[in-house]
Amino acid sequence: MRQMVESASTDGRRARGDRTRRAVLDQAVQAASLDGLGGLTFGSLAGVAPVNKSGIAGLFGSKERLQLAVVEHARTLFVDAVLAPARAAPPGLRRLWALVGSWVDYSRSRVFAGGCFFRTAEIELDGQDGPVRDAVVAAHQEWEGYLRHHVELAAAAGELAADVDAEQLVFEITALLGGANDRSLLLDDDAVYGRASAAVRAVLVARGADPAELA
Amino acid sequence: MRQMVESASTDGRRARGDRTRRAVLDQAVQAASLDGLGGLTFGSLAGVAPVNKSGIAGLFGSKERLQLAVVEHARTLFVDAVLAPARAAPPGLRRLWALVGSWVDYSRSRVFAGGCFFRTAEIELDGQDGPVRDAVVAAHQEWEGYLRHHVELAAAAGELAADVDAEQLVFEITALLGGANDRSLLLDDDAVYGRASAAVRAVLVARGADPAELA
Repeated sequence: MRQMVESASTDGRRARGDRTRRAVLDQAVQAASLDGLGGLTFGSLAGVAPVNKSGIAGLFGSKERLQLAVVEHARTLFVDAVLAPARAAPPGLRRLWALVGSWVDYSRSRVFAGGCFFRTAEIELDGQDGPVRDAVVAAHQEWEGYLRHHVELAAAAGELAADVDAEQLVFEITALLGGANDRSLLLDDDAVYGRASAAVRAVLVARGADPAELA
Repeated sequence: MRQMVESASTDGRRARGDRTRRAVLDQAVQAASLDGLGGLTFGSLAGVAPVNKSGIAGLFGSKERLQLAVVEHARTLFVDAVLAPARAAPPGLRRLWALVGSWVDYSRSRVFAGGCFFRTAEIELDGQDGPVRDAVVAAHQEWEGYLRHHVELAAAAGELAADVDAEQLVFEITALLGGANDRSLLLDDDAVYGRASAAVRAVLVARGADPAELA
């Protein structure tokens, strides 16, 4: 009986810790999307949850571990916003096109206040070394790999030319999407998302896609 | 006679001040291309020239004026590296293609240690307000305007389709070039510059350019 009470109490503390951690990470990804991961401090995050600076430090341990947790949290939000909705489309060309659409929605709707979290983090960390940069690079590679996989499925299914250069195509798609994100933020230009979608469509049609599949 | 001596002495001081200012700015643009304009301090630049921190503060006055001078200096270096060599090509399509080539050389050869200075500054400042952001936006607009001008000349000369959407085309070109810069830095991938050139070539040919003009 005493053991059950203790266990319930431990579970309660753990649940509170998880909620606090989540609240801190929700705030931290937003701040990092605007000002970069380097600007995150335990002090700047105090106040977003019912714990003070040393409570937050206790939850994460070190600034580097906080930054790694933030990258992982951003990755989860990215998957929820971009990959999950696109899963309604069948693998191959239609999934690829759905991913382009959900990426545009993700950037445009400011899931992260500063636009795509990873765009900011990539530019910030590209001249640095260490586990945080590695985590950002891994997330980038994972995203490119996922796109490449669906390019290859599309080529195998005859939805794109059989000899399509998947790496070239994925470079073009990600450059156009990233460019739209950056330009919309810099110049407050929402129309650029339409330009990016039109450009990706042209790039796919030039590789043999049936325009009717890109609704 | 005394006036001439005093004037020569004033000129000497001014020349030394100009050299110091130039040395500080040369160092500052490199540092900012890696770590952003926000990381610049008078203290971090002391030691690059025969003046101390307060000497540098005296030359620039305020951190904001230092940042503005750095943006202007970066703009000058960009013009020297990208626009000047392309002036050998005639206006219109060939100038446009020469600009793409010199931009690739500029990014690839790391005129700025952290890749294109303006890519870093744009991502850093896009969520901020003030004269430094305005200066970065103005430089971006100037570059896009220059590209657009040569797209329009090319269309008027029949080198591109007469109904080409210049803004769409310039968006695609700058997104592909920027994407190559960013990817080369993040993934240490030099091959991406060839991918960007091939993609811009395809984009121009799709708008009616004669491939023979894109040598």
